[in-house]
Amino acid sequence: MSDIEIARAAKKKPIQEVGSKLGISSDHLLPYGHDKAKVSAEYIASLKDRPNGKLILVTAINPTPAGEGKTTTTVGLGDGLNAIGKTAAICIREASLGPCFGMKGGAAGGGYAQVVPMEDMNLHFTGDFHAITSAHNLLAAMLDNHIYWGNELEIDIRRIAFRRVMDMNDRALRQIVCNLGGVANGFPREAGFDITVASEVMAILCLAVDMTDLERRLGDIIVGYRRDRSPVFARDIKADGAMAVLLKDAMQPNLVQTLENNPAFVHGGPFANIAHGCNSVVATQTALKLADYVVTEAGFGADLGAEKFFDIKCRKAGLEPAAAVIVATVRAMKMNGGVAKGDLGDENVDAVKKGCANLGRHIENVKSFGVPVIVAINHFVTDTDAEVAALQDYVQGLGTEAVLCKHWANGSAGITELAEKVAALADGGSADFKPLYPDDMGLFAKIETIAKKIYRASEVIADKKVRDQLKEWEAQGYGNLPVCMAKTQYSFTTDPNRRGAPEGHTLPIREVRLSAGAGFVVVVCGEIMTMPGLPRQPSAEVIRINDEGLIEGLF
Amino acid sequence: MSDIEIARAAKKKPIQEVGSKLGISSDHLLPYGHDKAKVSAEYIASLKDRPNGKLILVTAINPTPAGEGKTTTTVGLGDGLNAIGKTAAICIREASLGPCFGMKGGAAGGGYAQVVPMEDMNLHFTGDFHAITSAHNLLAAMLDNHIYWGNELEIDIRRIAFRRVMDMNDRALRQIVCNLGGVANGFPREAGFDITVASEVMAILCLAVDMTDLERRLGDIIVGYRRDRSPVFARDIKADGAMAVLLKDAMQPNLVQTLENNPAFVHGGPFANIAHGCNSVVATQTALKLADYVVTEAGFGADLGAEKFFDIKCRKAGLEPAAAVIVATVRAMKMNGGVAKGDLGDENVDAVKKGCANLGRHIENVKSFGVPVIVAINHFVTDTDAEVAALQDYVQGLGTEAVLCKHWANGSAGITELAEKVAALADGGSADFKPLYPDDMGLFAKIETIAKKIYRASEVIADKKVRDQLKEWEAQGYGNLPVCMAKTQYSFTTDPNRRGAPEGHTLPIREVRLSAGAGFVVVVCGEIMTMPGLPRQPSAEVIRINDEGLIEGLF
Repeated sequence: MSDIEIARAAKKKPIQEVGSKLGISSDHLLPYGHDKAKVSAEYIASLKDRPNGKLILVTAINPTPAGEGKTTTTVGLGDGLNAIGKTAAICIREASLGPCFGMKGGAAGGGYAQVVPMEDMNLHFTGDFHAITSAHNLLAAMLDNHIYWGNELEIDIRRIAFRRVMDMNDRALRQIVCNLGGVANGFPREAGFDITVASEVMAILCLAVDMTDLERRLGDIIVGYRRDRSPVFARDIKADGAMAVLLKDAMQPNLVQTLENNPAFVHGGPFANIAHGCNSVVATQTALKLADYVVTEAGFGADLGAEKFFDIKCRKAGLEPAAAVIVATVRAMKMNGGVAKGDLGDENVDAVKKGCANLGRHIENVKSFGVPVIVAINHFVTDTDAEVAALQDYVQGLGTEAVLCKHWANGSAGITELAEKVAALADGGSADFKPLYPDDMGLFAKIETIAKKIYRASEVIADKKVRDQLKEWEAQGYGNLPVCMAKTQYSFTTDPNRRGAPEGHTLPIREVRLSAGAGFVVVVCGEIMTMPGLPRQPSAEVIRINDEGLIEGLF
Repeated sequence: MSDIEIARAAKKKPIQEVGSKLGISSDHLLPYGHDKAKVSAEYIASLKDRPNGKLILVTAINPTPAGEGKTTTTVGLGDGLNAIGKTAAICIREASLGPCFGMKGGAAGGGYAQVVPMEDMNLHFTGDFHAITSAHNLLAAMLDNHIYWGNELEIDIRRIAFRRVMDMNDRALRQIVCNLGGVANGFPREAGFDITVASEVMAILCLAVDMTDLERRLGDIIVGYRRDRSPVFARDIKADGAMAVLLKDAMQPNLVQTLENNPAFVHGGPFANIAHGCNSVVATQTALKLADYVVTEAGFGADLGAEKFFDIKCRKAGLEPAAAVIVATVRAMKMNGGVAKGDLGDENVDAVKKGCANLGRHIENVKSFGVPVIVAINHFVTDTDAEVAALQDYVQGLGTEAVLCKHWANGSAGITELAEKVAALADGGSADFKPLYPDDMGLFAKIETIAKKIYRASEVIADKKVRDQLKEWEAQGYGNLPVCMAKTQYSFTTDPNRRGAPEGHTLPIREVRLSAGAGFVVVVCGEIMTMPGLPRQPSAEVIRINDEGLIEGLF
């Protein structure tokens, strides 16, 4: 059966029943249909004195075209923990609407380790992204409106730093000239749209701890600069209050369920390049108050995703992960070992061994944050015993364990061994989490620290302009912010084709950007696309409702 | 107490309880929180063989700054019918988000005749408008994408007829140049955004009878023309299926409640100028299957709103209104009689008498559709007995009755007399509804018919270009469509300052547009703004969540 067939055959329970597993009464759930709900802000506030459960991060090797199954393993592990009698919840990101109409939509997990309702999660879900789009574009409209009515704040229209957003793959809007048509329509200027997941408002929603914090951060967004380069904030435009009102419902985390009816929080979805790529702090903190174990996921591989999870999300939200799972596959190891995608079906133990270097580097990196690690081998039917053994032996040589998991085929029954070991690791108390660098380190030094300790680069290359910009931000009081690296997810280097565990390379910085509301400095190393386009034959062309009333072509 | 204070003090019932008044079981309601729900499409389909209740239209005189209270009367009458023991439901439009951040947001009714939850209805509600925005913009993105990848359909990029939309007052987007930035971003061209309520997709959603009809109409949208002027349809771009998928939930009508816990369907909200300005056909038809009396509302005054309700919505959906209520106020009569807004507090019986001509014309017009009429005088505290008597005498002279209603102050208790009389009128069987013109009349003759019979103009003025365009559409098979008049709502003429009941004026046509998917020809008589701007001090500046967690400034 395909993922969508399995998802459709799911015996979903009413969402109130799923919530009751975590002790949430139906009064505190705001239902969206029968299988989705938001957990009310009032209820979340009432939980604040409860102790936290154990936070478990699921991360991965550098992604390859072979597929790793990070979300599938996150979902499977949550089900596995529940299957061995633990109270566990899952925290993952929401899907972006736009890309679903380009390539096939993303499922939340796969096989027998999925979160449902899949259709809704790939479409409007509970409207969070629409609310973010509205809040973002309200600020943009108020900014242009301010200029139109006399520009009292003296914003330099050549230095507007805030674009508009749409949850759509629409290259036509990447670069536009707006305010055309004469006096009644404003002052013509260059502008553009990003996709909603690239909105700073998205990153803010995912990092804010409550509505007060949300509104403060929204006010901190820099919308542009004056001729003297002094920043103008969303607060100056007086947009922060109305933006917060638009985001009031969206700030409440969404509860859905796995195929095995276990609770899953699906909330927020910032880009993993120009933002930090994790689900919301509010969802994670709520789950930690309600479950003994919370399994969450970070974007891309551990070099980007786990580093940002630790250095941005955990640092800022005061979260202390108890254990990390690094997902690897035999197939991906073989690709890292030089095997072409077409040959992945053939046994090749040597390639597995050779490719393990990439995994080893990630294990070492994650441990350096003081978080104990276990490896999940996400099983594919083509894996041979000898290949699996080679991978396990390699990991054991690093003082870590690699557990074979068959959750894709068997659901929780296929992942109980990992669940037992993860629970033991998290309960063992060996975690001693610390971020990679202190807040008070200089911005450039922070970049160098990540580049050298995580990417194993020998040096960071940056123009004087970039270095001066970083110094200017430090002078303005932004020096204490963490840095958010935007580089290719396919390699430790900035070259997507360099697999394995390279070292001694250089990290060239192309550009730096300040996300003052989200609270990080984005370091762009390479080409980053913030508004995708549709392919020649977008999947939208075949998406339709069939004669049985089911959605076709979305998955 | 203010409207918002009254709304907040409402004792709302769980939406399942409200639905049960109409016999809808909770299985057939898709809840959105505890006080909103969508009625499932499957359930609606199961009702098709039931007899229809009586359809009652609430319309009004031409709007004046004095206020008429059409929605308030619609809500009050619904409550009044329930109070006298009838099973009645209300059908009104959803509010647009964008304008709420410019001027104060619109309540749904007022005083003790309101629909709740007011906050949600002024914000994201159940996400219908966001879904329409997404569906609309997906088509726009696919259109530019088609051109980008080779333009196989040979669309003339100077003749693209489909803009983008956003539910925001944003003048900066009225006129733009998009696809800038070089080869990767497409072919530069002029474009622009309308507000979402102006989207043809909105009109389509409100006129489609089911998902099959919706998808067909979406496919019929004309997105542009080739050099030879032949139209290119959304169907040619292969966007119709995916658009329908995006609109699947939005097509299900929303159920909320009045302050007196009576059922109200709030669904769809097309512009009343370039579109027909009524709530959705699906909501109206569903309500007619479930209630004995359905009170619905049309946009603007009866010259525009009722005419379009009859000639577009009722004609196309096969609806047969049983009675019409025309809302008038003593204050508005005085303004029509020449009194300035500041002097409306002073008794002026002569001005009332003089201003009644506007009401009289609307009574005569509505009766000409074969629909029996009753007048609701929406009471204001400043009204004197003599003024009310003058208004009632005038109406009686036309063979019609005018009933004084105090629902704003007293809820259903203030409107039972009207409710009794409306029920009797609707049950009396005197209705013999027929549209104003037959389908097979020529397009220009249809315009002339409306201009002469409804507006009492002596002639219609149109350029050869306009007349040729109408003939071309007739040749292409669009001659059987109704026409949708876009003119000022403040007067029977195209001059908003000409109150009363003018006749013998001319109706100049500025432009005609074809909404092939919605199924009407728009006749633009005057300046029509499809993307509003924000005022100098937008209300968004004071909208915020206060210390008690309540939304301030939105109302």
